[in-house]
Amino acid sequence: MQTSQREALAKQTRISLCSKVNRAMSEIPNSVDADLRGRARTVIPNGMWGHQNAALLPDGYPQFFASGQGCRLRDVDGREFIDLMCSWGPIILGHHHPAVEDAVRQQSEWGDCMNGPGPVLVDMAETLVDTVAHADWVEFQKNGSDATTLCVTIARAATQRRKILVARGSYHGAVPWCSPSLVGVTAEDRAHVIQYDYNDAESLREAVASAQDDVAAVLVTAFRHDIRRDQEMPTKSFAKAVRDLCDAAGAVMILDDVRAGFRLDRAGSWEPLGVRPDLSAFSKALANGYPLSAVAGVERLRGAAGKVYATGSFWVGSVSLAAGLATLQVLGSDDVVSHLEAMGQMLRDGLYVLAAKHGLPLRQTGPVQMPMLSFQNDVDHHLAKAFCSAAVKRGLYLHPWHNMFLSAAHAEKDIAEALSIADAAFGVVANQIESVG
Amino acid sequence: MQTSQREALAKQTRISLCSKVNRAMSEIPNSVDADLRGRARTVIPNGMWGHQNAALLPDGYPQFFASGQGCRLRDVDGREFIDLMCSWGPIILGHHHPAVEDAVRQQSEWGDCMNGPGPVLVDMAETLVDTVAHADWVEFQKNGSDATTLCVTIARAATQRRKILVARGSYHGAVPWCSPSLVGVTAEDRAHVIQYDYNDAESLREAVASAQDDVAAVLVTAFRHDIRRDQEMPTKSFAKAVRDLCDAAGAVMILDDVRAGFRLDRAGSWEPLGVRPDLSAFSKALANGYPLSAVAGVERLRGAAGKVYATGSFWVGSVSLAAGLATLQVLGSDDVVSHLEAMGQMLRDGLYVLAAKHGLPLRQTGPVQMPMLSFQNDVDHHLAKAFCSAAVKRGLYLHPWHNMFLSAAHAEKDIAEALSIADAAFGVVANQIESVG
Repeated sequence: MQTSQREALAKQTRISLCSKVNRAMSEIPNSVDADLRGRARTVIPNGMWGHQNAALLPDGYPQFFASGQGCRLRDVDGREFIDLMCSWGPIILGHHHPAVEDAVRQQSEWGDCMNGPGPVLVDMAETLVDTVAHADWVEFQKNGSDATTLCVTIARAATQRRKILVARGSYHGAVPWCSPSLVGVTAEDRAHVIQYDYNDAESLREAVASAQDDVAAVLVTAFRHDIRRDQEMPTKSFAKAVRDLCDAAGAVMILDDVRAGFRLDRAGSWEPLGVRPDLSAFSKALANGYPLSAVAGVERLRGAAGKVYATGSFWVGSVSLAAGLATLQVLGSDDVVSHLEAMGQMLRDGLYVLAAKHGLPLRQTGPVQMPMLSFQNDVDHHLAKAFCSAAVKRGLYLHPWHNMFLSAAHAEKDIAEALSIADAAFGVVANQIESVG
Repeated sequence: MQTSQREALAKQTRISLCSKVNRAMSEIPNSVDADLRGRARTVIPNGMWGHQNAALLPDGYPQFFASGQGCRLRDVDGREFIDLMCSWGPIILGHHHPAVEDAVRQQSEWGDCMNGPGPVLVDMAETLVDTVAHADWVEFQKNGSDATTLCVTIARAATQRRKILVARGSYHGAVPWCSPSLVGVTAEDRAHVIQYDYNDAESLREAVASAQDDVAAVLVTAFRHDIRRDQEMPTKSFAKAVRDLCDAAGAVMILDDVRAGFRLDRAGSWEPLGVRPDLSAFSKALANGYPLSAVAGVERLRGAAGKVYATGSFWVGSVSLAAGLATLQVLGSDDVVSHLEAMGQMLRDGLYVLAAKHGLPLRQTGPVQMPMLSFQNDVDHHLAKAFCSAAVKRGLYLHPWHNMFLSAAHAEKDIAEALSIADAAFGVVANQIESVG
């Protein structure tokens, strides 16, 4: 069957696929996972909250995990998965990376949360400043949104201005000023947020003009990684325009590198573009899964950063900082980015070949080390859900509408195994379409 | 010398004491701490940020800590301290409590940050719901301010209103809507915050009236624990007024139990007052130092909580939840609150006797398990700084203007030793006054 025929068929069959897949919220019956979900519903609203709520995912996804090792996860029912989510980004070296775990074990014996930081704060700060090209200083927090919020606050303190320019649809955290949801959010929380379109210098120029000398900062993600749509790398001309417009307006350029940080370029995700921000926000991969985030800034903003009051009970906890230091050291000694690129390219090439073999209109976008898949004209991600559902039941953990992540622990044999499972999963989708067609 | 004479003298000598103490920012020369501070200043604005910045403290305080065990901390120069700050609250069972560390070690072997939570999320949620009297459901985060912000957002979602009533001077976190600093904060961040006076039902009534049917929530701390002033327990009539005014206005009553939680009453800090909130925010002591916070709510708000989008990369990390579960289990089996009260009373009684012996006008306020000291008419805390500086140099870590914390690891012998050091430190202050006088 030709691709065009398949596409037409896929369109016809969406409703019937929908009914199959959108027992989406269903659970594996008689499983430990189902039991835990039942108990969770009693003591947690909806049984789970946030981005890791498996009720949003298609049939077959576990909610609860028992353990992780390298690029593999095991759920509470003993099923093993090749993990292509890497805990939604944090796991860059693989689950339980020995160098990180050794550092954590040693620091844990000494102390974590004390009346002040341990020496590891200074080691980690120096190493992060050495790692990130534009960084002259850093401060640490816990959440990605702590870091993006602090960047915005520092920018306002430095410029004595208020407006923050944010790309439409970009994710910068789930706190009122930037949450993708408006439930419980007031108009004033967004009063000084002005939107522009990613990769559209003209729209940014208009946004700057509309702010009328009140632009505190332009906030930009490493690339366009909005959920439920194609990923998009920033063009060099857009990146340059962001820098030039900030300079001309006297505004602070903030790179939100929370999601992409250390996977595209160890020194900062816009280094390959030749554009350096004034402030960066890091989190996720910074400490290979240990809770840590950071703001990195240029010398010019040191004074403003020093005037802003930001703090948290656990922000200088030594264990997470030790994990971060070990992570940066591994990233500095091994060429992790090249490995991620090689494995990502192998996965992407292989998936294209397999999808074509099954006549399925696969799309893959964004950087290969942060894969994102979709199918052409796939309304409500029905094909993507069917494919990912078939894959997860066979031991490959993918995501149907969010970008995924590779780690240093993904070796060729793991990608080969992932492709073999994907082959079977594409086959299931092709057969579903055929049987309905 | 009589107390009144000492007071007069103290007043006269404040300037000269000031010059001594306010080499406040000074460091121990030729020490590891001084070396680390020097390095830190290069890569961190001011060398440190937030509430643990030792540059704000008097002479003799270390910035960097090497290790902790029980109620003792060791700094990077090998000096040991009896710790009366407990990491500013988190350490409720003592540093490196064996039950917590065992649970952490076991969970670490399994996994921490995965593609979803581990079973420990459910165990911890059930245990917290069982522990907190008003709780029908819970959600977990990392920072205290994550929890207070989420409470506010849930209240707004539930009521479809905007105003949040907050006691003047209360601390609810260091994010723009509630930070004690206005640097980098916009007017709109505070647009819907209305202030009232703690323990003043009439001022709360006026605040409610001024909000004109737009009251989403009344936010109240467990007791008045603002820095640099006497602590103050809520009166029963104030507590009842908060509840009644919320009920009458259809507003959500939020108890910010981040700082006090589990030290006053395991089931919630206002249980002894017979008043239950609709939402509580917990953090600090919840996991004995591991990064964790929580919102606990009543059934009526479950739906609103389920509609609010709040999430973080590390919010269901299993290690912190395992630490929290172990902490709650110890709190449930041992009568920690009574122990903290007994030790706190012993400390308070002893300090009063010693201060009187040295003719010093000591004041102690708030609950004994969260001690706060000051001296009468002590402008800019000069006497408190001198006393705490003398104490820290002798191995007792106190705070001159912030409430302190006791832990289950403080035994009678530790309090006795603390009192012995306090005796010497009072003596130093008395001699300083005398020598100047």
